[in-house]
Amino acid sequence: MKRRQFLKTAGLGAAAAGTIAAPAIAQSMPELKWRLTSSFPKSLDTIYGAAEIFAKAVAEATDNKFQIQVFAAGEIVPGLQAADAVQNGTVEMCHTASYYYFGKDPTFAFGTAVPFGLNSRMQNAWQFYGGGMDVMNEFYGKFNIHAIPCGNTGCQMGGWFRKEIKTPEDFNGLKMRIGGFAGRVIGKLGAVPQQIAGGDIYPALEKGTLDACEWVGPYDDEKLGFYKVAKYYYYPGWWEGGAMLHNFINVAKWNSLTPTYKSILRTASEMANTAMQSKYDAGNPAALKRLVAGGAVLRPFSADVMDACYKASNDVYRETMATNAPFKKVYDHMMAFRGDQYLWWQVAEYSFDTYQIRARARG
Amino acid sequence: MKRRQFLKTAGLGAAAAGTIAAPAIAQSMPELKWRLTSSFPKSLDTIYGAAEIFAKAVAEATDNKFQIQVFAAGEIVPGLQAADAVQNGTVEMCHTASYYYFGKDPTFAFGTAVPFGLNSRMQNAWQFYGGGMDVMNEFYGKFNIHAIPCGNTGCQMGGWFRKEIKTPEDFNGLKMRIGGFAGRVIGKLGAVPQQIAGGDIYPALEKGTLDACEWVGPYDDEKLGFYKVAKYYYYPGWWEGGAMLHNFINVAKWNSLTPTYKSILRTASEMANTAMQSKYDAGNPAALKRLVAGGAVLRPFSADVMDACYKASNDVYRETMATNAPFKKVYDHMMAFRGDQYLWWQVAEYSFDTYQIRARARG
Repeated sequence: MKRRQFLKTAGLGAAAAGTIAAPAIAQSMPELKWRLTSSFPKSLDTIYGAAEIFAKAVAEATDNKFQIQVFAAGEIVPGLQAADAVQNGTVEMCHTASYYYFGKDPTFAFGTAVPFGLNSRMQNAWQFYGGGMDVMNEFYGKFNIHAIPCGNTGCQMGGWFRKEIKTPEDFNGLKMRIGGFAGRVIGKLGAVPQQIAGGDIYPALEKGTLDACEWVGPYDDEKLGFYKVAKYYYYPGWWEGGAMLHNFINVAKWNSLTPTYKSILRTASEMANTAMQSKYDAGNPAALKRLVAGGAVLRPFSADVMDACYKASNDVYRETMATNAPFKKVYDHMMAFRGDQYLWWQVAEYSFDTYQIRARARG
Repeated sequence: MKRRQFLKTAGLGAAAAGTIAAPAIAQSMPELKWRLTSSFPKSLDTIYGAAEIFAKAVAEATDNKFQIQVFAAGEIVPGLQAADAVQNGTVEMCHTASYYYFGKDPTFAFGTAVPFGLNSRMQNAWQFYGGGMDVMNEFYGKFNIHAIPCGNTGCQMGGWFRKEIKTPEDFNGLKMRIGGFAGRVIGKLGAVPQQIAGGDIYPALEKGTLDACEWVGPYDDEKLGFYKVAKYYYYPGWWEGGAMLHNFINVAKWNSLTPTYKSILRTASEMANTAMQSKYDAGNPAALKRLVAGGAVLRPFSADVMDACYKASNDVYRETMATNAPFKKVYDHMMAFRGDQYLWWQVAEYSFDTYQIRARARG
């Protein structure tokens, strides 16, 4: 089947190239122009930039035969409808966070991050060598989507709060800008999760119609200036220990690609996957220093708060699994992987980092 | 200059293709066959495999126009002479650990890992977005080498010991198989570092002519069976918090490539860089469980031991910098980066991992 598909595609490529006998490579690398809609604005240069890094690598590898034009959120498709545009074929692909589509099916969340899930490296290991990509693409297939990891923020911050959060009870009645899964979790603690676009958060915090917000981490948060109106900056963002981005590709478009192009898309996506993480890692420390110098007050969530959120997360997991078999399938798959990962992580990685952090503190 | 170089190369490509007018793509993608010599045996499928993953991606992206044949250590070049073979043009490229060439110049060590240096993600951030690749390639240029990161083991284990190591004094007289930089460090504590090939370690430990060895981590160590003859398995490997591998390419060969091929090599290397890390991360937990079930006894290095090794490392750094300006340049560059990285790492990443490890222990 695959060979016939390839021959058919190659035949079309040759026809498009005209009547001259083109060498084999022209058939495996036909001229293609795709549109990629990003879920992110250009101002988030790290996340938005991952799609540009990806598209540039594809163009370079194909001598510009395969051009993927990147559009920012809202230019051709609203940011949170990117997956829909891929599903219905309006665009060939998008660069997005899978968990934005939690409302369609909570199973989407596992592609990006779930509360108390995996850290960034574990998410890579699960996707690439732990069966995660396969189990997720089986799910995405129902939405005409083929997904390839393309970016990670690393563990995010817990967000900005106008008042200190000392106990789980402090979440009661708290109006917080926080999305999907995590919103449902803090709802269990009495908080009122709100979905607000990035540009509307600052004035809402300033007016006091919003008590708290989560965004990403120091590098991105600094741009929006939250520290001026909600100075308590909590960590960690337990709902996204390693938030992964994806290229979502329309399945029919993916299947129409030559093996050469499929390989180039996979390789370029995986390269950009780490490029984005590295750019965040390189940029976050200086941004954190500037934020603290500007008045941000760093606070860890207390053990009581973490425990309450952990328990509430497990309640939401249980409730969702009770009515959603695909969700349960992926949950069981990922959480078995998580258990083994932390068994190992606590040995070499964690004890190395522990020593390094203490040595730095000693000076 | 670059444009002229490209035109010249493109012209040669067209000539090689014969007299027919080839389309532009044939000129940017000439037929090429390169040899890559690996510093590793095929039995280390994770490290050796990274070169295969890289070469396969290059072949697929170029429709087999650019073929890179991978040779295991010793097939055409001994494992520890891979860089020399690249330097003198015997092979176009190799896949190796830069710190193997510590004897040529200790500055090589920064490419892979140095004692109390960076973890795996930080090493990526330093290389790709912290200026590390530039500062290292300036150094490698003196050896006719252009380097691209291609793989990481993550933080390694501290190795296998026949007797417990409780205090720094227990290193006195200890015969340990350990290489280059780390060997010099434990030498400060009175240990006798030894360079022994992988296959010779087990019998030496069994006979007692060797007291300890370091290798990689659970996934690789299990294959060599050290737990049967030196059951104490210490952590962390403070001399390699995130050991990075590289593709070393002969500079003249690198410069002869078309822009298309340069981009493809870079992208494929960076993809394989993370693939190798992910494969280790996915494989290490189960191997660790099997090792412990088989009798391995896990032990953390004590705070006293870590402190003594940290101090000894700083002594070696100081001594080396006193006589080696390039070493000092890279040291200052990397260590400034390290300080900022751990400032940030301890906030979100580390506190997330801390909670996850404790939650797992509670069950």
